[in-house]
Amino acid sequence: MRITILLFDRMAALDAIGPYEVLRYSENAEVVFVGKEKGEVRAGQGTLGLIADAALADVKDTDVLLVPGGPGQVDLMTDDEVLSWLREIDKTSKWTTSVCTGSLVLAAAGLLQGRKATTHWLAQDQLPAFGVEPVAERVVFDGKYVTAAGVSAGIDMALTLIDRVAGSVPAQAIQLGLEYDPRPPYDAGSPAKAPEPMVTSMRENSRFFLQEI
Amino acid sequence: MRITILLFDRMAALDAIGPYEVLRYSENAEVVFVGKEKGEVRAGQGTLGLIADAALADVKDTDVLLVPGGPGQVDLMTDDEVLSWLREIDKTSKWTTSVCTGSLVLAAAGLLQGRKATTHWLAQDQLPAFGVEPVAERVVFDGKYVTAAGVSAGIDMALTLIDRVAGSVPAQAIQLGLEYDPRPPYDAGSPAKAPEPMVTSMRENSRFFLQEI
Repeated sequence: MRITILLFDRMAALDAIGPYEVLRYSENAEVVFVGKEKGEVRAGQGTLGLIADAALADVKDTDVLLVPGGPGQVDLMTDDEVLSWLREIDKTSKWTTSVCTGSLVLAAAGLLQGRKATTHWLAQDQLPAFGVEPVAERVVFDGKYVTAAGVSAGIDMALTLIDRVAGSVPAQAIQLGLEYDPRPPYDAGSPAKAPEPMVTSMRENSRFFLQEI
Repeated sequence: MRITILLFDRMAALDAIGPYEVLRYSENAEVVFVGKEKGEVRAGQGTLGLIADAALADVKDTDVLLVPGGPGQVDLMTDDEVLSWLREIDKTSKWTTSVCTGSLVLAAAGLLQGRKATTHWLAQDQLPAFGVEPVAERVVFDGKYVTAAGVSAGIDMALTLIDRVAGSVPAQAIQLGLEYDPRPPYDAGSPAKAPEPMVTSMRENSRFFLQEI
């Protein structure tokens, strides 16, 4: 299975590395990290360098496309080179996937038009502007389009995809290999579960990673 | 808080990137990725390049040290340059932490002697050879030494550390920001929960990422 993961400046690294760590154990996995140009991108606030081994022009087809989120996705949403590449490679993919605000990039490319999708909880209200129906679930399948909620949800998305593609045995084996038996110290990982003032405050301070629409 | 994360060839990227994505949101976080040499390391089977912005010699003190796991940790466990650096920087750290088989590297450096620690479930039986008492828990604190179980456990470790250092409000806020509301498709993430034949088979095939002792 050929897996193509897009890298870009100011991306959230875990959006990509979570699913990568799952998908690389799929049968005959061939992973390629691709950037606008070949070479280094800087994730987060710039303290982490990741290498794109291929430029967009080098990758013309794939089985799985994965687009992580931002805040760097804001620039991608109006980047014609990236959007055109996404439309072309999507014609070849068996699965077109995203994590966090990566779905906004797929949406900006027109690929989620008329479909259901999810994204980071803070960005759900951005999807309708692109003709996409937001669904506040952790992993959303609509045909070959698979979108995950914020950041850490990419791990669940990738395991769910492996389950769909290859069945429960590889999905469970990969989960066991990654010892994915989550035990966060609090149960505060969604706006429905976190303290309400925290949710409100985060909404008020979230515009930095969203596009003005 | 200065956070120093060790990178090396054939490491499991998620071991580092999971906790990084949590710790980088701590107050006044300064993250540095460090390698034996400055420059690129190749994680996993080699398909992911990560950049070490500093060489070992460049980093002489830190608040948090984080050592991820392997299989590349096997080479580190007999690498005197790395082991000496770990002993020196550990003298300066407030917290010395590991994920997955990273605890075997701390153990090989002698830093966990007489302490309790955890590691990937497949590597628990390697700890006693270094005078360490294995504890089959997801996150283990023993003084300033904090060890996490396999791969994905680093996320829980980092959130638990934030909770310990800064309290429940930042820990919950970071969890909410990362939308860490885990929902794996199966409950198979530990040897106690996965199908028994799968656990047995994985034990039989696990020597590749363990040191001969």
